[in-house]
Amino acid sequence: MKVGIIGAGQLGRMLALAGYPLALQFRFLDTAADSPGGQVAPLIEGGFADAASLSRLAREVDLVTYEFENVPVAALERVAATRVCLPPIEALRVSQDRLFEKDLFVELGIPTPPYRAVDSLDQLTHAVADIGMPCVLKTRRLGYDGKGQRYIRKRSDIAAAWDDIGGVPLILEGFVRYEREVSIVGARSTRGEVKAYPIVANVHRDGILRVTRAPHRGVALQKSAERHLRRLLSHFNYAGILTIEFFVQDGRLVANEMAPRVHNSGHWTIEGAATSQFENHLRGILGLPLGDTRAIGHCAMVNFIGSMPPREKILSLPGVHYHDYGKAPRAGRKVGHCTIVAATAAERDRLIRRVQRLMDR
Amino acid sequence: MKVGIIGAGQLGRMLALAGYPLALQFRFLDTAADSPGGQVAPLIEGGFADAASLSRLAREVDLVTYEFENVPVAALERVAATRVCLPPIEALRVSQDRLFEKDLFVELGIPTPPYRAVDSLDQLTHAVADIGMPCVLKTRRLGYDGKGQRYIRKRSDIAAAWDDIGGVPLILEGFVRYEREVSIVGARSTRGEVKAYPIVANVHRDGILRVTRAPHRGVALQKSAERHLRRLLSHFNYAGILTIEFFVQDGRLVANEMAPRVHNSGHWTIEGAATSQFENHLRGILGLPLGDTRAIGHCAMVNFIGSMPPREKILSLPGVHYHDYGKAPRAGRKVGHCTIVAATAAERDRLIRRVQRLMDR
Repeated sequence: MKVGIIGAGQLGRMLALAGYPLALQFRFLDTAADSPGGQVAPLIEGGFADAASLSRLAREVDLVTYEFENVPVAALERVAATRVCLPPIEALRVSQDRLFEKDLFVELGIPTPPYRAVDSLDQLTHAVADIGMPCVLKTRRLGYDGKGQRYIRKRSDIAAAWDDIGGVPLILEGFVRYEREVSIVGARSTRGEVKAYPIVANVHRDGILRVTRAPHRGVALQKSAERHLRRLLSHFNYAGILTIEFFVQDGRLVANEMAPRVHNSGHWTIEGAATSQFENHLRGILGLPLGDTRAIGHCAMVNFIGSMPPREKILSLPGVHYHDYGKAPRAGRKVGHCTIVAATAAERDRLIRRVQRLMDR
Repeated sequence: MKVGIIGAGQLGRMLALAGYPLALQFRFLDTAADSPGGQVAPLIEGGFADAASLSRLAREVDLVTYEFENVPVAALERVAATRVCLPPIEALRVSQDRLFEKDLFVELGIPTPPYRAVDSLDQLTHAVADIGMPCVLKTRRLGYDGKGQRYIRKRSDIAAAWDDIGGVPLILEGFVRYEREVSIVGARSTRGEVKAYPIVANVHRDGILRVTRAPHRGVALQKSAERHLRRLLSHFNYAGILTIEFFVQDGRLVANEMAPRVHNSGHWTIEGAATSQFENHLRGILGLPLGDTRAIGHCAMVNFIGSMPPREKILSLPGVHYHDYGKAPRAGRKVGHCTIVAATAAERDRLIRRVQRLMDR
């Protein structure tokens, strides 16, 4: 069985590494031959919207999945005409537009911040009046890692924000004074089986995920996150891993966004859960039984941004696992992560601090 | 950093899969292009004694290791003239000959069964008289998975055994009435750090390992096995994983053989230990800090011999991990294994039985 993966970044690479023991083979499609995935499986060099490359990929594999959120839906629809393509393209379409995403959350009874679609400065002014300040203006499409966002804290910010990112479809969202950011990663198989991982607490800085702690304790939050996850999974007749990011405000979940793919906040599962998100994504799209999602300890994931810390120092920490994506160093780039598995939360947090000190050097 | 691996069987494949997250790349040398390793990293097709292939491998990598015990020592010595080659070739040389192995065990104070070198029928007759029956006649070289062995239980077996396997250098060993077979897998790094995994109990049938249970409880046995392991490791100034197989007789260890490589009885460590034997082999030969060798539960490994059981059935068992080596089915061939991680020994044993029932179908 050969699986085609659109996008050969670290997510694709970790999918392939998880899939080899399941007797799967892989082909990547990516614009760069030296991508992380291309180092562990054959890669077709080509654009994500290039019809010839996409149909070559489809011809060479039994099933297509994607690890990259900005694959053009129209291109993927052509692939899906000849090969099963999972997760469902409708989930990708919705996730590519913050407005579609929020509208669906509302339709399914998943709480969101207040929001308004914004296509002109005039609409923006009215939306700010409706929602109140502070609020956040975001591009509806192609935003990631904090890019394409402007905070509006006072009246004079309105025109400045519009000048900065206006001219494309926008969404204005009420600012959530959150106590914490959490996410839930869960899998559904083509047979309808669903398994959710424990919710995790995420720390972002400059819009980039830095640290995930897993599991995040809280029975009520876990139940509520699973309920929201299940609604989305059945709405899409989903297969594979789906992630929802939430704010926790006054002890309740407010949905921020979803991702129809394996997710950075699920990387801790490689060593920290009985079955990794990467293996469960593959099991899900192939209709295999899903694996146990239990955490095997107090876990964490620390992202390595820009460059890798000294490998030898990281490996000398007990219970710390090193993941290098094979990328060249570059400011702001996710080049690797480590997973921490500890017996207690205090020990886990001590290890996070030790890893962070090694990164600062 | 690129690591060359001589032999692209399942051991090589699992080394590569463990090494990718450490930022390592791999090249294999094997006679068959479709070997398990060749499916996950580039492979040079060539014989293990072929000078041109070996020097091509050495040129393309920074460091050479091997996963296959029968690499000709002379060929490896030529490689070692241009590239660091680990584990040390002397350990390979000793392990290729049961007589050298037993002589070294005796030299280091590691208990062995009584044994005699045998090169003629006359010597065999004398050796049987010395050692007593039952005893086992074995070829000194190239024996594995029970091949090249004959039991001598009565006088008339002597000539028959000689007729069957005589004509090559042989060793006669006293038959050990063992209660159990155990092994220890341990790592040493080029910096002299040593870490041992818990001893494990092995069940063979028809000379082939079937089931490993880990850890095997017994503080005295563990201490004694680690003492023997450390002596061998320092004798060779070893780097990488070394395995010793023992019989347990009257509660004491009697060494059977050693393997200077990752070992089938260590496969449970992929999901069952904090760090796998494959990762620790690579850490050891690269001089990186060794990883934690603790078992994370009551674990087992069940070998799949001849053909794989139904993947879907295996994956539906909680705590069971599936490892397919990408080999064509063939009677007596190791084509895969599963790792079992359970909370109790009883649950582990229940899962072993369930896996075995799926194999019998």
